[in-house]
Amino acid sequence: MPRRITLITTGGTIEKTYDDLTGELSNRKTLIRRMLGELRIEGTEVQILELMSKDSLDLTDEDRGRIVDAVRLAGIDSQTSGCSGVVILHGTDTLAETGELIYREVSGLVGPVVLTGAWRPFEMKRSDALQNLTEAIFAAGVLEPGVYCVAHGQVHRFPGVSKDRERKTFVSRRPALSAPD
Amino acid sequence: MPRRITLITTGGTIEKTYDDLTGELSNRKTLIRRMLGELRIEGTEVQILELMSKDSLDLTDEDRGRIVDAVRLAGIDSQTSGCSGVVILHGTDTLAETGELIYREVSGLVGPVVLTGAWRPFEMKRSDALQNLTEAIFAAGVLEPGVYCVAHGQVHRFPGVSKDRERKTFVSRRPALSAPD
Amino acid sequence: MPRRITLITTGGTIEKTYDDLTGELSNRKTLIRRMLGELRIEGTEVQILELMSKDSLDLTDEDRGRIVDAVRLAGIDSQTSGCSGVVILHGTDTLAETGELIYREVSGLVGPVVLTGAWRPFEMKRSDALQNLTEAIFAAGVLEPGVYCVAHGQVHRFPGVSKDRERKTFVSRRPALSAPD
Amino acid sequence: MPRRITLITTGGTIEKTYDDLTGELSNRKTLIRRMLGELRIEGTEVQILELMSKDSLDLTDEDRGRIVDAVRLAGIDSQTSGCSGVVILHGTDTLAETGELIYREVSGLVGPVVLTGAWRPFEMKRSDALQNLTEAIFAAGVLEPGVYCVAHGQVHRFPGVSKDRERKTFVSRRPALSAPD
Repeated sequence: MPRRITLITTGGTIEKTYDDLTGELSNRKTLIRRMLGELRIEGTEVQILELMSKDSLDLTDEDRGRIVDAVRLAGIDSQTSGCSGVVILHGTDTLAETGELIYREVSGLVGPVVLTGAWRPFEMKRSDALQNLTEAIFAAGVLEPGVYCVAHGQVHRFPGVSKDRERKTFVSRRPALSAPD
Repeated sequence: MPRRITLITTGGTIEKTYDDLTGELSNRKTLIRRMLGELRIEGTEVQILELMSKDSLDLTDEDRGRIVDAVRLAGIDSQTSGCSGVVILHGTDTLAETGELIYREVSGLVGPVVLTGAWRPFEMKRSDALQNLTEAIFAAGVLEPGVYCVAHGQVHRFPGVSKDRERKTFVSRRPALSAPD
Repeated sequence: MPRRITLITTGGTIEKTYDDLTGELSNRKTLIRRMLGELRIEGTEVQILELMSKDSLDLTDEDRGRIVDAVRLAGIDSQTSGCSGVVILHGTDTLAETGELIYREVSGLVGPVVLTGAWRPFEMKRSDALQNLTEAIFAAGVLEPGVYCVAHGQVHRFPGVSKDRERKTFVSRRPALSAPD
Repeated sequence: MPRRITLITTGGTIEKTYDDLTGELSNRKTLIRRMLGELRIEGTEVQILELMSKDSLDLTDEDRGRIVDAVRLAGIDSQTSGCSGVVILHGTDTLAETGELIYREVSGLVGPVVLTGAWRPFEMKRSDALQNLTEAIFAAGVLEPGVYCVAHGQVHRFPGVSKDRERKTFVSRRPALSAPD
């Protein structure tokens, strides 16, 4: 039986597309199918839930409530669910805020919830989008139950994750999961 | 303190380059620096060990002995080493053979040894090279001590791994590490 | 003796870069060396003149005057110059305006002046930047003296060129140079 | 009325594909539709004629006869044809031989016949395939009647073209079309 993960899309830089009439990048639709089309994911069924397409600076409390609901809906808090993990595509600006909320609101997780995003849109060359998506899907299959931020080869466990604007990556107040003792 | 992994290159399809005089693909040198140049690995120091550049069908017993020695040298069998994991780039044809040998020969592992490769060379468009390298580096940071094959979103633990020529990926006799029970 | 062309950069969508702090695309510097690095131009010496980095909607009369001066400086109006053609990277919004000005102001051309730009920045996947640059450099070597706009496989000769916002390409009032009679 | 060109595919390095079972590059089918899918060609109707898929070292006299026939069929030797030019994708090893044959055998050309190829397959990163195809299609629209080899920003007119194995490009005994006098 293949492992099954739920992939929730919310927008963010990772999914921004270019409008050649206005010359602007913005969130219009999810790019997750094109991204997955460039990866080979074997032995895992990825169920896509297109929740919203928003810059994460524009997310409202209600939007975040819907994300929490979607995590619950994925059955990741239920022993009877076939779902073994959740991946959430999210803008980096408020990813940590959403992660903290899921950490507080969703109890009894039986699998990992992994948030990720990108500093450069998938549609741009030299984007970190595919790397981070690859890592997040992989993490959703191997990490123990909990809420995580995964990007740039690093795992950060909630609570205590934040965006480091200067270093252009995520950091955590506590040591990374995988650091040697 | 950043985590440290050792990355051993041996050749294989993943590192094959095109010779525009002969029109052939072959192993001439490692491409690992160019591959890493397309990834952002934060919080991890990757130490590269260029061991050999060979099609894995051409590996001799002596070559495999050198790979086993390199794994030991990485200190992954020693509590005093700062190395938290090993990644090995390897041709897919005999990757499983090398993995089984490491599994039998190297005891007392204190971190994961992760073998990976690719079905399409890194130098080709739509290659699985960067995905598999991304996953292998990530796995080297989060898996428990043991010998693994990582590719296409899957983790296979030695012993019992083999190449599935028809499905063009690796499979294992026992359930994947992360499969739901 | 190799042919010599002068390549003048002025900015425009083709040269816009992404700022991962602000999430915006804008003209900061020329990308011409990176673009040329992806092409093989043999038998032609390309002399680069970095003139300005501006969205073409922001070009002033003075800016356009500098472009006209640069075309003259390239010696394309002089029999004694070794320069056999000029390429100008330019934003598409006012490319036609600049082309008309060069057509009116620079007399006695001994080689072609070729303006080009792109609808998607070079830094984005599926950009038309390299195609249009390739065509413009090629055109600068084979067209007869005159002022042209070259993009998307088409040659339009000034005067009478305009941007077609709906079809997202350039058009001309008179038949294209190469149309069958 | 849009200009119309005929694009004849014969194989060669430009169209080689990778077989991940054997690990070899060879000519199996044309890639012309995928190549054209990465270009924007406006105002020109490209009619594709898939003639053969062969390494040009394997072309027989009969194969070359079929290429000559296809050029004639394109109507490029006829005033009544709507075709304004022909592009031929060809292996570089014997491209010059085929070009010389067309030059000798097809008289009364009313448009240009442009042969091109690549040193790296289209399926590889950093290939010269798209550049050369772009130039060849452009050349087919602007050059005067004659038989040409176009690649790497250069135009070589038959007779007198050859492959320079050392410099990895084409050269001609007489000065390039566009060289300054």
